[in-house]
Amino acid sequence: MIKIVVDLMGADKPLNELVQGPIKAINDNSDLSVVLCGPENEILNSIKDLSYNQNQLEIIDSKDIITNLDVPTRAFKSKPESSLIKGLNYCAENKSAHGFVSCGSTGAVLVSSQFILGKISECRPALASILLSQDGKEVCIVDCGANVDTKVEMLIGFAKMGVSYMEAIGVSNPRVSLLSNGSESKKGNELVKSAHEAFLNESFNFIGNIEGKEALSGNTDVIVCDGFVGNVLLKTIEGAAKTVFTDLVAKAKKSSDETTRNILLKSVNELMKKYDYNSLGGAVLLGVGKPVVKGHGAANSNTFYSIINHCYQMAKNNLSDKIINKMR
Amino acid sequence: MIKIVVDLMGADKPLNELVQGPIKAINDNSDLSVVLCGPENEILNSIKDLSYNQNQLEIIDSKDIITNLDVPTRAFKSKPESSLIKGLNYCAENKSAHGFVSCGSTGAVLVSSQFILGKISECRPALASILLSQDGKEVCIVDCGANVDTKVEMLIGFAKMGVSYMEAIGVSNPRVSLLSNGSESKKGNELVKSAHEAFLNESFNFIGNIEGKEALSGNTDVIVCDGFVGNVLLKTIEGAAKTVFTDLVAKAKKSSDETTRNILLKSVNELMKKYDYNSLGGAVLLGVGKPVVKGHGAANSNTFYSIINHCYQMAKNNLSDKIINKMR
Repeated sequence: MIKIVVDLMGADKPLNELVQGPIKAINDNSDLSVVLCGPENEILNSIKDLSYNQNQLEIIDSKDIITNLDVPTRAFKSKPESSLIKGLNYCAENKSAHGFVSCGSTGAVLVSSQFILGKISECRPALASILLSQDGKEVCIVDCGANVDTKVEMLIGFAKMGVSYMEAIGVSNPRVSLLSNGSESKKGNELVKSAHEAFLNESFNFIGNIEGKEALSGNTDVIVCDGFVGNVLLKTIEGAAKTVFTDLVAKAKKSSDETTRNILLKSVNELMKKYDYNSLGGAVLLGVGKPVVKGHGAANSNTFYSIINHCYQMAKNNLSDKIINKMR
Repeated sequence: MIKIVVDLMGADKPLNELVQGPIKAINDNSDLSVVLCGPENEILNSIKDLSYNQNQLEIIDSKDIITNLDVPTRAFKSKPESSLIKGLNYCAENKSAHGFVSCGSTGAVLVSSQFILGKISECRPALASILLSQDGKEVCIVDCGANVDTKVEMLIGFAKMGVSYMEAIGVSNPRVSLLSNGSESKKGNELVKSAHEAFLNESFNFIGNIEGKEALSGNTDVIVCDGFVGNVLLKTIEGAAKTVFTDLVAKAKKSSDETTRNILLKSVNELMKKYDYNSLGGAVLLGVGKPVVKGHGAANSNTFYSIINHCYQMAKNNLSDKIINKMR
């Protein structure tokens, strides 16, 4: 049995909607159980009409919530009764718990996960987003916002963790690139230019700098960047894709021909899923003791379903152990 | 008569193809003349079969080329016979010349323009890209790659120049935002957090931080960022849009239904133009003595047509003077 601890609080949408995600996940996977963290009465009330196997569900009653207004470094100490902290503590203390998911405050999830679950190497833990490239293969972007104003040593760690992740999911000798403002080796800010030099001396498969436009080209498996830049990259892809889809929908709606309208709308609906990071697997926190997946704050029940599934797959494949072994 | 100096060298494609851009531009605008910079024989040979008014065309014979391999700061002194340097000198020395366009080495265009045309204020010149938002309005992203590892004072200058540009094209009280990894005021790297504080004390209309996904939302008129990050933003929009279009084309090609295929391909073709920065106006160098527009290195004749037109419009509307007045 794989047990995933689920922090239901801190996301924008109400609990009674979000809780349908974990219920669907356990109904779909008989060897999965979830530990739901939030106000017990509210959870019980929200799931009373849903059918599920009670053996696959536990609740950790948590009255407090960590929000985006809490200072991440203080939340850990000031809100021990919050769903995030109680859930992480359970995850750390119970060998039977395999992973943790949350759609709450990114900063609080990052800081608290490191404190409570521990770091697995000297590397600074980082948020990796797993996107799909043009050819449908996974691309790991690390860091996506956990660390800003990074140093070269941290970027080396991000590269190693990204490589470990990609190898653990079956990609051999993953191609590592540095996100820069030009593909030439001399292009970059001071950080990227120094990192480029340093990467040449590392044993991973460094293929050089790439530009933002190549992120989804399929030419690289691991894209290494400072968390500030990675966050801009990730959100810009999301926004640009959405803008194109909105243009297509507007085009469809303008058309007086019903066939044109239907074909365009259908195609947009099908394709949007690929770029909808809400339904994708969320960001993986690399470098902590157990798999942690952080979903979008604007999460819906599908997001929870999806990040629980991602965490379940990681746990099932012992991804964390594989990463730990790689990083030693 | 508006006279635009055109550096035909340093782009990827051959001169005989590119030269069709300026010819089309003068044929379309009877009050426009161009000064073509490049090897005279080759230019004459390339245009001998084209029809145009000879009074609208001059040639500055330039035997040398500045490439991406030249160090930008040295190219200016080491290659005085290059098309870029001869063209800029002509532009600086002749009152009748109103602007300059090039698709050559970005670094060399930036450095040489500053040296030869001069700076118009204390602000560091910056590259502004003018994109179209969801609602079809212009958005100015500054800086897009001219300056990396910037300081707060430089970002303030970028904001002022962006505001001046937008006001000069008719947008009143342009909304200025800072590109960050979160919309909250406390989000950002050290540079953005300090800039946020500083922007609050400036007289322009600062609306706060925006994320990459909002760049094309129409919620802001001027997006201020470090040139490294701006470059990632710009190229990521380009790449993500291209990826979506490629997906749509693949979808169309897979369809066995001819109507579906045709409708999808037609829509993609129509929409791609909006995101094809090759056909758009290129990046404007803000803060130098005369309007300079820098096109993509992968430019084709349409790109030249488009950047000449952009520069012509700027010159015609005295944009540079308006910006100079604003910046004083």
